[in-house]
Amino acid sequence: MLPGSTAVQHSDAKAFHAHRITGAGAVATQGSAVFVMLSGVSEPFAFRVLNRDGAARRGVLTTPHGVVQTPAFMPVGTRGAVKALTMRDVEDLGAEIILGNTYHLYLKPGDSVIARCGGLHRFIGWPRPILTDSGGYQVFSLAGMRRIEEEGAHFRSHIDGSLHLLTPERAVDIQAQLGSDIAMVLDECVGTRPGSDATGTTIVPSGSDAEAIRIAMERSARWAQRARQRQLQLRDDPRSAPGVIVATPGQAQFGIIQGGTDFALRTESVQRTIDIGFEAYAIGGLSVGEPVDVMYDVVTHTAPLLPEEKPRYLMGTGMPDDLIECVARGIDLFDCVLPTRNARNGQLLTSRGPLAIKNARYAEDMSPPDPDCSCYTCRHFSRAYLRHLFVVGEMSAAALNSLHNLHFYLDTMRRIREAIVFGSFEKLRREFRQTFSRRPQI
Amino acid sequence: MLPGSTAVQHSDAKAFHAHRITGAGAVATQGSAVFVMLSGVSEPFAFRVLNRDGAARRGVLTTPHGVVQTPAFMPVGTRGAVKALTMRDVEDLGAEIILGNTYHLYLKPGDSVIARCGGLHRFIGWPRPILTDSGGYQVFSLAGMRRIEEEGAHFRSHIDGSLHLLTPERAVDIQAQLGSDIAMVLDECVGTRPGSDATGTTIVPSGSDAEAIRIAMERSARWAQRARQRQLQLRDDPRSAPGVIVATPGQAQFGIIQGGTDFALRTESVQRTIDIGFEAYAIGGLSVGEPVDVMYDVVTHTAPLLPEEKPRYLMGTGMPDDLIECVARGIDLFDCVLPTRNARNGQLLTSRGPLAIKNARYAEDMSPPDPDCSCYTCRHFSRAYLRHLFVVGEMSAAALNSLHNLHFYLDTMRRIREAIVFGSFEKLRREFRQTFSRRPQI
Repeated sequence: MLPGSTAVQHSDAKAFHAHRITGAGAVATQGSAVFVMLSGVSEPFAFRVLNRDGAARRGVLTTPHGVVQTPAFMPVGTRGAVKALTMRDVEDLGAEIILGNTYHLYLKPGDSVIARCGGLHRFIGWPRPILTDSGGYQVFSLAGMRRIEEEGAHFRSHIDGSLHLLTPERAVDIQAQLGSDIAMVLDECVGTRPGSDATGTTIVPSGSDAEAIRIAMERSARWAQRARQRQLQLRDDPRSAPGVIVATPGQAQFGIIQGGTDFALRTESVQRTIDIGFEAYAIGGLSVGEPVDVMYDVVTHTAPLLPEEKPRYLMGTGMPDDLIECVARGIDLFDCVLPTRNARNGQLLTSRGPLAIKNARYAEDMSPPDPDCSCYTCRHFSRAYLRHLFVVGEMSAAALNSLHNLHFYLDTMRRIREAIVFGSFEKLRREFRQTFSRRPQI
Repeated sequence: MLPGSTAVQHSDAKAFHAHRITGAGAVATQGSAVFVMLSGVSEPFAFRVLNRDGAARRGVLTTPHGVVQTPAFMPVGTRGAVKALTMRDVEDLGAEIILGNTYHLYLKPGDSVIARCGGLHRFIGWPRPILTDSGGYQVFSLAGMRRIEEEGAHFRSHIDGSLHLLTPERAVDIQAQLGSDIAMVLDECVGTRPGSDATGTTIVPSGSDAEAIRIAMERSARWAQRARQRQLQLRDDPRSAPGVIVATPGQAQFGIIQGGTDFALRTESVQRTIDIGFEAYAIGGLSVGEPVDVMYDVVTHTAPLLPEEKPRYLMGTGMPDDLIECVARGIDLFDCVLPTRNARNGQLLTSRGPLAIKNARYAEDMSPPDPDCSCYTCRHFSRAYLRHLFVVGEMSAAALNSLHNLHFYLDTMRRIREAIVFGSFEKLRREFRQTFSRRPQI
């Protein structure tokens, strides 16, 4: 822990929360200035590695809206809300950064609406760091509703069928208007599984089509170049884009490494992306259906190629054991819908493994979901009650399950960070392997 | 406020919450004893009027699970959860008592399951007072799926169509197993609107059929006699009912006044119910579609007929202004699904009146839903954000709207209690009438 940095962040958060939302008039005329003043948007983007244990790194990421202790897991707040939870739940869980989905926010309520409301932080009432994806992942999962050209991706909205064009530059502009602390470049994800939906988590690369992966990787590199150019233009001369409200000055931009499961393509993608130069780099195109060992191998190959002094973000991963395994390979940032989505489907991820709460064996089981867990759900509620809530379809089932699953993920990250500081990361990794099983718990 | 009593209640709650749910084995063998010890089930049922202002009364209700400051509003926790909220939300709102629906809990998870798990308080993780209805209201709303006889009500489950018989004695037994602090007698509600569903809030008496109302009132009186006999049997000699686990010793039982909108029938119902003798009395059969002035008139007529020294509960009421108007007529307890149900439908009840949050005019309105409100929702979120959440169908829309509406109801009760203490209740009543309008807010 870094007491100093944390204190700063907390006092920022308090200042933000102490601020009563003012009338619409005040916001319209001086909203941006008020926000900047109150949430202390002054820190530039920075990353510092504090400790190392093997390839695992313990660091601090500084963003315009505060610091993030790494390795960190980012809960997914698709449409400006972490599903089933309120922002105070997310804060109480200790999340220091959340992820917003550009595709969804662009369609509703729209990036211009959010910009006019003072940016995403102010709009959703979350004063801490936010990372936004580029929207590409969702667009590429719109099977049969999108067409990729060099210019960008033409797609139809899954809401009303309206036609849209997402270019690398447009993805930059949208994220500038959202005002996230970290923006992602638009990249091309190859091989969507036919019929996957717009919420898009089932992109599966057709591994056999090496040529398609190469083409996508190369296009992603060209798009990254265009995205960087636009980002620097907005940064250096925001007046040159009069239609774009830059909601968060100091927004960082991350490049994305593609190349499927082909090591040579991954190496080439790293080189081309680093040559462009970003604040940090993400590994994309994984956790999309490939065997977990293949995923680990690609991370083992790719992570060390990335600059030591910059954070490394593994997109869309994963199961709890993936977090530890990929930290062991040098990853600093994670995001995944798994803890919240599985919670809504009644799957609790515990220290022993997954637990399907609807199972009849829990009908009168008054023990907590996870006896080793200190979350609100496990401290106050039984499997019997959670089963009842899930079976009858109460919304609070989703909330209580999500609280537990996110707590488990965030607590695992806390334990990882601590272990790295004390040089006991390999011990933690062994223990986790021995305790946690992906097989359903009995 | 009563600092002494409140402190006792809070320390009870803390003791309960500090208690970690133990393993299933421990609960099965000694659950009831542990529960009794931890949540301090020792106080008998009592009611004390502390202040009067006209017919309005400021009192304290003591139950086995703690005290309730009256006049009080009880949030509805139909199936063991206040919809869209967690128990800590409900506690944070300052609710001191909640209502559980016997019909729903009897069907799922079943009163026997709840009894074996230590009673409803323990099962749902709510250590404070709970009132349960008799299940009658829901059964009588099962149009075409129920048949009333002198013995009781035959009905089919809305879940699986299975046949059930709810008698006055069975309603007592079920509530004894649920272990609520306050149980209601089974009464007959006349004239259900055809096609009303099992969640039953649309019972409309056919006012023209005075004879049906008399028959139902008289049957309710006979059922009340049987219910009281059974309650006293369980209280005096629980071993005489070996199939019934009495989860909360000291449970109170309230009688219910029927008689529709006919003053003479109401008077007769009061006399017959008082003759049986209960810990307190409720006015039933109102807020079921009759004009609001008629409801007020029936309360004006009936409340003064009830014993001065016992609490008076107006069932199923109502809109925010109804609370003040009926306190003015001597009512001490209220419950209603309106604040939570309307919240889920996007209606915020504010100090000025109802606000339909989905309205396009709020799309960029960064002001809070109710500028005069100090709830979590109004302190942190804008109409624009709440509209967005509701329009895209995020679950947190229901949570944030419910938090606000319940806060408004519970805060109104706090203001009422304070005004009675200071002798300024009529002033509050006038101000409320001037500010609050049932017309949609613009």
